[in-house]
Amino acid sequence: MKYNISSIPSAQTIVELCRKASIKHIVISPGSRNAPLTISFATQPFFNTYSIVDERCAAFFAMGMAQQLQEPTAIVCTSGSAMLNYFPAVAEAFYSQIPLVVISADRPEHLIDVGDGQTIKQPYVFTNHVAYEANLKSDNREDDNTLIQDFNSNQIFNALQTCHQNQLPVHINAPFDEPLYDKIDAQNVDLNAFEFTNKDAFSQVRQMHIESFVEHWNASDRKLVLVGVNHPDDIKIEDLEFLTQDNSVIVMTETTSNLNHERFFYSIDGMIAPIELDDKKENLFDKLQPEIVLTLGGMLVSKKLKAFLRRFKPEFHYHINPYNAYDTFFSDVIHLQYEVKEFFNAIKPQIKAKTSDYFTYWNTIKNSREIQTENYIKNIQYSDFWCYDFIFKNLPKDILLHLGNSSCVRYSNFFDLDTQTQVFCNRGTSGIDGSTSTAIGSSVVQNKSAYLICGDLSFLYDSNALWNDYTSTDFKIIIINNHGGGIFRILPGDKHDDYFHTYFETQHQHTAKHLAKMYGFEYNRVSDKAGLENQLPTFIKSKSKSILEIFTPTELNDKVLLDYFEVLKSSNREI
Amino acid sequence: MKYNISSIPSAQTIVELCRKASIKHIVISPGSRNAPLTISFATQPFFNTYSIVDERCAAFFAMGMAQQLQEPTAIVCTSGSAMLNYFPAVAEAFYSQIPLVVISADRPEHLIDVGDGQTIKQPYVFTNHVAYEANLKSDNREDDNTLIQDFNSNQIFNALQTCHQNQLPVHINAPFDEPLYDKIDAQNVDLNAFEFTNKDAFSQVRQMHIESFVEHWNASDRKLVLVGVNHPDDIKIEDLEFLTQDNSVIVMTETTSNLNHERFFYSIDGMIAPIELDDKKENLFDKLQPEIVLTLGGMLVSKKLKAFLRRFKPEFHYHINPYNAYDTFFSDVIHLQYEVKEFFNAIKPQIKAKTSDYFTYWNTIKNSREIQTENYIKNIQYSDFWCYDFIFKNLPKDILLHLGNSSCVRYSNFFDLDTQTQVFCNRGTSGIDGSTSTAIGSSVVQNKSAYLICGDLSFLYDSNALWNDYTSTDFKIIIINNHGGGIFRILPGDKHDDYFHTYFETQHQHTAKHLAKMYGFEYNRVSDKAGLENQLPTFIKSKSKSILEIFTPTELNDKVLLDYFEVLKSSNREI
Repeated sequence: MKYNISSIPSAQTIVELCRKASIKHIVISPGSRNAPLTISFATQPFFNTYSIVDERCAAFFAMGMAQQLQEPTAIVCTSGSAMLNYFPAVAEAFYSQIPLVVISADRPEHLIDVGDGQTIKQPYVFTNHVAYEANLKSDNREDDNTLIQDFNSNQIFNALQTCHQNQLPVHINAPFDEPLYDKIDAQNVDLNAFEFTNKDAFSQVRQMHIESFVEHWNASDRKLVLVGVNHPDDIKIEDLEFLTQDNSVIVMTETTSNLNHERFFYSIDGMIAPIELDDKKENLFDKLQPEIVLTLGGMLVSKKLKAFLRRFKPEFHYHINPYNAYDTFFSDVIHLQYEVKEFFNAIKPQIKAKTSDYFTYWNTIKNSREIQTENYIKNIQYSDFWCYDFIFKNLPKDILLHLGNSSCVRYSNFFDLDTQTQVFCNRGTSGIDGSTSTAIGSSVVQNKSAYLICGDLSFLYDSNALWNDYTSTDFKIIIINNHGGGIFRILPGDKHDDYFHTYFETQHQHTAKHLAKMYGFEYNRVSDKAGLENQLPTFIKSKSKSILEIFTPTELNDKVLLDYFEVLKSSNREI
Repeated sequence: MKYNISSIPSAQTIVELCRKASIKHIVISPGSRNAPLTISFATQPFFNTYSIVDERCAAFFAMGMAQQLQEPTAIVCTSGSAMLNYFPAVAEAFYSQIPLVVISADRPEHLIDVGDGQTIKQPYVFTNHVAYEANLKSDNREDDNTLIQDFNSNQIFNALQTCHQNQLPVHINAPFDEPLYDKIDAQNVDLNAFEFTNKDAFSQVRQMHIESFVEHWNASDRKLVLVGVNHPDDIKIEDLEFLTQDNSVIVMTETTSNLNHERFFYSIDGMIAPIELDDKKENLFDKLQPEIVLTLGGMLVSKKLKAFLRRFKPEFHYHINPYNAYDTFFSDVIHLQYEVKEFFNAIKPQIKAKTSDYFTYWNTIKNSREIQTENYIKNIQYSDFWCYDFIFKNLPKDILLHLGNSSCVRYSNFFDLDTQTQVFCNRGTSGIDGSTSTAIGSSVVQNKSAYLICGDLSFLYDSNALWNDYTSTDFKIIIINNHGGGIFRILPGDKHDDYFHTYFETQHQHTAKHLAKMYGFEYNRVSDKAGLENQLPTFIKSKSKSILEIFTPTELNDKVLLDYFEVLKSSNREI
């Protein structure tokens, strides 16, 4: 193999081990200290390299790719504060279990804290939010020896292997001494000994786990299955089908679960919020309280659901997931570390459907709420609620759909999205900070049309996401612009205090118009029903990257949502 | 005192101790978890509160204010990834010794890592880059007691006191339990016992320090005094005047030192670069090598100077600074922990001017280079160099001038700025990430007209800096747009490789035009000498916040700079 590669052994090792680990997508931010890596990655055809200046966006972009592929991608930056801008995406990757390889170039140790520019204390910055830290030693000085090279190779190998095996971010900090730009034709490090192994096959489901689970499951009259964030390729609807044959089971799914079935309860808040408003809420919650809860997938969005289960605790909470489990309801979660499909296959022969009115009772309410919802929407004024409904009913089905955090993902949970639609949202840290970059990154490695729906604050926050050469003509952004953080109107607190508008809602009059023009997006705006009805089809058909900005009435939005829960309240009784 | 204040004791304590510590400027980013702080800060007239959504910008904005005032300012954010966006500014503050109080709201411990949204492991994230970490305990649950309140009060007090005393960033992590929005009329925590003390008066200069310094100083024929970053209120020209009476002393200053004198050498690279090109450079460097180096102020920009002194080491290196000293030249720096003025007053009676040709020899070369520079500039083509010269000659004198990092601050060092001009640049980490936000923040607490000169990449990187309601009509931005990172043409590496344009220079065709329109800035662009000659006066006179974007020829810029050093080479001999 003959190509331009840095003369620095550790740079060669990073690049070659990334190749051996099949890490193809490398997002590079400009800098001089990382030149040894940039040169080596950019000139080797095996890699798809991307150049993104703002490291915050670069990291979310790479994370979006890794999220889609469920394979590690890498980000490469120069020394100093550059890597700090990666941190929001690193934390998101950590809590969303996305494999991201962070590679920061550094000055060699003797140049740290001697007053040189672009120098901070890089090692251990990401401690607590990465699964492995490889703090390499500089190996292009005269006193180099094979001990250092061996140390570095092992560290790099461990980092990449951990990233792959655990589906978590890792950090490689690589100090390089000058000269930084020297090249050779072929690598002179020998890495034949390093072979990556595939993700561990998870151990055979153990009989003792099955027995205890089956015993609790079969004994329960009220079983609640909850599915949070789930990649469309992970848990599939077929895996859960057997749960729909049992009237003692309710399956609740969030939009980010990518699972839809007519017997599933997709609108969790639509179920719970009207109970909260009821005089007899204690009785109703008693009736909804499960004996056993089984959670699958990642983070759950619904705060109402968590609050309900923290008060009306299940006797048993099982979580089936290959990696980790959170004790979300403070009920001593039992973590069964398996793939869901594998576990279900193992238990299916032993579990029995049980006679129970649990499903029927709540399904009657659910059906009634669905009818009420349809009626309600027919009659509501133009508002966030009306717009989300119209959008979800009219978007193409077979798309990649990214949702912004805050009100966006919450509204989406009221609606039953089509099975073909693949839904993603950064729920690891639920940050406002990188939704657009993530969506663009994820669209790059997908053949589907990609849509992002987000709020105005989150769009403006990540405006630098548009600054790249990789956004396809198939990428579209819908901004729900309610002139500030709509979420704060949903949360408690007095909305009439002077400071509310400035410090919570952060009212503003900005739009996406100028940014669209700057970055070559087609742009249209609507501000009423007819406008959206007119523009959405055109927007969907457009052959260029486009933004549709939907202006909604700030104060009315809140009223329409609260009225909705009031309306649904009547179905609490219709049983 | 009657105002809206959170019912949560630790929130009350933070706000009240900030007041007692005279921390007036509080930059708040929107969120719900930080509501107890937002409500309490925003409604108390003592504080000037600011609302900035993007935490990265918010932190640099607050840091800009603290940099000007040399007093702590505070930033307040919600839980989760929000605080991670503060990190670039925290690191800059750490290395630039700027007092910044970082206050992050957090969930109480029992809600960490149980699957709740906007939750990361917040404590210890900033370890190594803050001077104090106050990790508070949640104190609004029923089991609260005065022990927790006492612990929190002490932690908060220590953090604020450390920030003030050490002029360094500190972090207060404040977990709040729900309810978050409850208010009371008057605080119910008693904080009378806490009294902040002023910055420690630095101890009397000790006789033993004077003796040893004076001995080395008086014995040296070649004394080099170097001044890096220096706030205009710190070291003053009067303090250094005595150094100009001594022919054995050369004083070299960078633009960021805010010190000008006809006998000072302001163009360090202009002095050293032509020597590097000389056949007899070893002889010349031998002649320039000092016996003693005295450094004052903060970071030095010139890489050439550092490289020279690391090879041609002084026998003694003293650094006078109240806080810290870097061993920048690997010559066992002696740190004398005093205020410069105080130290100089103590030694002045004992030091003697020495007969030496050190100053005269190099001053002749300096004078000759100045003449050559003037001639060179008269004849050069339109380029970065020509533009910087024109700008520095024509900007108003009595202004606040912020410089972007990379080529911007390097070019500025070729020119002798007026004493009235107050120059600032983020040289702590020398990052590209927050120049505009810092400049806007610093202009808010100043009465002068404020200018930022920066490159296109650094302007685009921090484009969200413009998203705030506090930018005065007196704030102006000059962008030197050379279509990419001009600095990479100055650094080594092959400029003709395909990958150079994409991954180093990161060429682009974006301009500031649309952002200017979006954020209400007047905008003009120029791309030749006549254009700049025409537009600059109008731009300076304009009564609104404005951007002047100067497009320069990418490849020619590099040539003009290199030719300049070649031209100056001839004056190496004119002695």
